[in-house]
Amino acid sequence: MWKPPRGFLAQFPNLKAILALGAGVDPIPTDPALPKGVPLLRLVDVGFPAQMAEYAMYAVLRFQRRMAELEALQRQARWNQLDPFFTRDFPVGVMGLGVIGSVVAQRLAAAGYAVAGWASRPKQLDGVEAFAGSEAFKKFLCRSRVVVNALPLTPQTESILDAAAFAAMPRGGYVVNIGRGAHLVDGDLIAALDNGQLDGAMLDVFREEPLPSSHPFWRHAKIVVTPHVAAPTIASEVQAQVIENIRRLERGESPLGLVDRDKGY
Amino acid sequence: MWKPPRGFLAQFPNLKAILALGAGVDPIPTDPALPKGVPLLRLVDVGFPAQMAEYAMYAVLRFQRRMAELEALQRQARWNQLDPFFTRDFPVGVMGLGVIGSVVAQRLAAAGYAVAGWASRPKQLDGVEAFAGSEAFKKFLCRSRVVVNALPLTPQTESILDAAAFAAMPRGGYVVNIGRGAHLVDGDLIAALDNGQLDGAMLDVFREEPLPSSHPFWRHAKIVVTPHVAAPTIASEVQAQVIENIRRLERGESPLGLVDRDKGY
Repeated sequence: MWKPPRGFLAQFPNLKAILALGAGVDPIPTDPALPKGVPLLRLVDVGFPAQMAEYAMYAVLRFQRRMAELEALQRQARWNQLDPFFTRDFPVGVMGLGVIGSVVAQRLAAAGYAVAGWASRPKQLDGVEAFAGSEAFKKFLCRSRVVVNALPLTPQTESILDAAAFAAMPRGGYVVNIGRGAHLVDGDLIAALDNGQLDGAMLDVFREEPLPSSHPFWRHAKIVVTPHVAAPTIASEVQAQVIENIRRLERGESPLGLVDRDKGY
Repeated sequence: MWKPPRGFLAQFPNLKAILALGAGVDPIPTDPALPKGVPLLRLVDVGFPAQMAEYAMYAVLRFQRRMAELEALQRQARWNQLDPFFTRDFPVGVMGLGVIGSVVAQRLAAAGYAVAGWASRPKQLDGVEAFAGSEAFKKFLCRSRVVVNALPLTPQTESILDAAAFAAMPRGGYVVNIGRGAHLVDGDLIAALDNGQLDGAMLDVFREEPLPSSHPFWRHAKIVVTPHVAAPTIASEVQAQVIENIRRLERGESPLGLVDRDKGY
């Protein structure tokens, strides 16, 4: 399943396992109808991390190489060789260092960016500066020209991308959201873009999906909206993992992607 | 110097060396005023290959992830999860395997693309399928969904990106030009885009620069025009290489980037 309506799970008394068809399992862990003692599994890898890294790389390159401004110049047929931002002057921060965030951070570091990672608990990755816990969040934001959010959605991370977070970033910063829409406070993002604190955002996930056609994100000149396509499902890989997990459960072995209900991921 | 007018060099009888401020030295080698026996040097590296690789990566990601179509959907506030092209189904071909093309090819290969390289003479690079010589050009084009041109401009490579080349590529292909404008036959590109043989192009170099405001490239929906900014000059690195080369010449040592006048690069 993918995002069941609240209470939906109560009608199945004989569940042996719940296999979520996503890397994130919100809102299942906070649903009181979730039966106790039934393993909740999420998809692990199945091509998601590499695709997320592509999306993040595209977004970071677009900001660093000033592609939105060059597109605007093209519409006016104006030849204007904008001063570039050099790679070394464009530090990137990745929020969340799970299966996805780790690959995103390491691919960006391999491309020459100064990459820092922030996670709830300390995590060391080659070539990635490590920040951990809420006390280090502001320091992490201060040094990040671009922030890429790849966190799981939990009560602790909801609305983490808010006015206070944007204010802690360097002026003229950028935000990329490949986590969940509820990580972001929509109005705070628009305010930060409109007052110049942020200079751009690329968003793949939204509080309501499909994003309603009346939502201001669609028409904001500094926001790129994509329709939850950062990591499209590769059916063959998902099928293989679902089959593998059913086999493991039948044999009494530990399945892939077992969710810790207290942590929510 | 950078692209001297034809004949300009004839007025300097005491030249000890000519230091070109670019990775490409066209049109100097074909100028009859070029004094014999004077070393002609081009810039080597000075940050160009990594920047060119960023530009090529952005272009390939933009095509593979269908970003132009998603931007068009955003302008209509339409949520439409387009079927993606997967990385493995998106073979990239790099024309030219010199200092720049080699880095471009290897970065794209590291990102998961099936990369082939084509050069006048055979060149082996880890993870890159090698094609060499004019007899292998069509085979190289046939297997490349995207072609990235990083060739030097010589009489042999001028107008190499023409109707015949586009016809040899798979239908719905893409072209990225970071070589020279004169590699590309402008009218042939527009015809191939308009008849659907090609689906997009990203161009940084042009036959006439600045690109005249009346040129149809500016207004073509399937062409991204950037104003020769794929590899901006990093003044400090250029200065260091110019100083190093003058010192080497004064000491009688071989300089960096000595151009073979017959080959033209």
